[in-house]
Amino acid sequence: MSDFENLLKEYRDQVNKSLQEVLPSEESRLAEAMRYSVLNGGKRLRPILVYLSSRLGSCDRQSINLSACAVELIHCYSLIHDDLPSMDNDDLRRGNPTSHIKFDEATAILAGDALQPLAFELICNINIDEKTKIKLLSKLANACGFSGMVGGQVKDIQMGLKPSVEELDLMHFQKTGRLIQTSLEIGGLLSKLDEETIKLLSNYGKKIGLAFQIQDDIIDIESPASVSGKNQGSDLDQNKITYPSVVGLEDSRSKALTLAKEAKEILVPLSKKADNLRLLADYVVTRNN
Amino acid sequence: MSDFENLLKEYRDQVNKSLQEVLPSEESRLAEAMRYSVLNGGKRLRPILVYLSSRLGSCDRQSINLSACAVELIHCYSLIHDDLPSMDNDDLRRGNPTSHIKFDEATAILAGDALQPLAFELICNINIDEKTKIKLLSKLANACGFSGMVGGQVKDIQMGLKPSVEELDLMHFQKTGRLIQTSLEIGGLLSKLDEETIKLLSNYGKKIGLAFQIQDDIIDIESPASVSGKNQGSDLDQNKITYPSVVGLEDSRSKALTLAKEAKEILVPLSKKADNLRLLADYVVTRNN
Repeated sequence: MSDFENLLKEYRDQVNKSLQEVLPSEESRLAEAMRYSVLNGGKRLRPILVYLSSRLGSCDRQSINLSACAVELIHCYSLIHDDLPSMDNDDLRRGNPTSHIKFDEATAILAGDALQPLAFELICNINIDEKTKIKLLSKLANACGFSGMVGGQVKDIQMGLKPSVEELDLMHFQKTGRLIQTSLEIGGLLSKLDEETIKLLSNYGKKIGLAFQIQDDIIDIESPASVSGKNQGSDLDQNKITYPSVVGLEDSRSKALTLAKEAKEILVPLSKKADNLRLLADYVVTRNN
Repeated sequence: MSDFENLLKEYRDQVNKSLQEVLPSEESRLAEAMRYSVLNGGKRLRPILVYLSSRLGSCDRQSINLSACAVELIHCYSLIHDDLPSMDNDDLRRGNPTSHIKFDEATAILAGDALQPLAFELICNINIDEKTKIKLLSKLANACGFSGMVGGQVKDIQMGLKPSVEELDLMHFQKTGRLIQTSLEIGGLLSKLDEETIKLLSNYGKKIGLAFQIQDDIIDIESPASVSGKNQGSDLDQNKITYPSVVGLEDSRSKALTLAKEAKEILVPLSKKADNLRLLADYVVTRNN
């Protein structure tokens, strides 16, 4: 493994350990469903972004860990709900039965419903000045809601069979990009970076967020379930609108690479400090799961 | 109408106006579903509790209105999800088709998912010191989650056919009581009441929360749909566990009255200032819808 891959592994291990600690541990069906859907070996992209961006300044470790958990809890809740029969109706997630298959639909919906406020609670408890804390909470709440993630999911469900690339971009920006962007901003706010640097991280986040989604669509076509943890071609089977279905596989590939390149260009003013974020941009478009 | 009924109407009108303002107004299915499920003539008990308790001290009107909206948005999101086919499977709510009937299941789930973070966002935006704001957010998040509302809903779904009264009380305390209690605490925090008074409001809230739920169960048996806005006897039809089904109708009635009496006794140290909260305790157990 490269140094960077080791670093990603270290961050994943760290956030997994913290998630274990913050999730309810009691023996109940709800607690079990919450843990099942979170502690399942996800890629932990959003926590990694909190870690990487917070390293551009300095902040105590506990605040970073709890914030990293918060963004991941939001992400995991959204996956549980996206997988539901009334939405994507997916049986498999990261190689395991989805929450509503493993438990039942009501429990899956409620596990998601309980993960969301836990994210806000964690941020309420971090050790940072209240003013910054409110900024974190406000950004996170906004990224989750009507103009962010949930709004994007509704656009996804309602998307016609022949959307324009602009419609597709906007949907993905809301559904996936906003939380990715917010993870970077949260890291920056935690470490007291100046506004200009946070804006730059945000712009970088918009690019890699979209690149990440395109690469996801490509993986769905190219990777067998044993690698991706999803049924191969499940998007195709469900007639889902993806970048490859709209612009073709080759153009999707080149769009993802261009976005990663643009993301790295945005980081130029940060010079060597941002090397890990550059490596991350490459990782996002070369990963196969 | 009595002076108190006029006051309740005034508070309802005020929160309805504020809810109109804070809900997304654009022409989209998600915005429409959010508005539909919130602007439907609910009783607005939780906002009323924020208004009444904040009046024991003083606070600017806008902060009270936004906080009142926040607790109501949480309540409305929970109703949308409770009504879903995989949970209570209710077709009628406040005399209208439930959200998943009017729209569809996915839209209903997502409207709920978007109402929740909007509640947190509203509180982030109120005009009060950051320290108090964090307390409000923390209390609200805790009341919504695993150990509060969602935990109670799971207990409700999983409840055996012959629960003890203690199990029933705990379930309702988590499912309904916690948010009612929190609404009173929020009003108290907004108006900078001392800790002792807030604790007292919280204890009062625990009593009226339970009384409210028992009265709800009684209404389900006694009131026709034209009055209650629900199908009469829908709890019975669904074999739902209710206070009347566990302890009988007469004991339910006397338990509700006792709780209202105890709630009023808790208010003694507040003397005349708390008269409206006393009237509210009576209202809770005498209402027929």
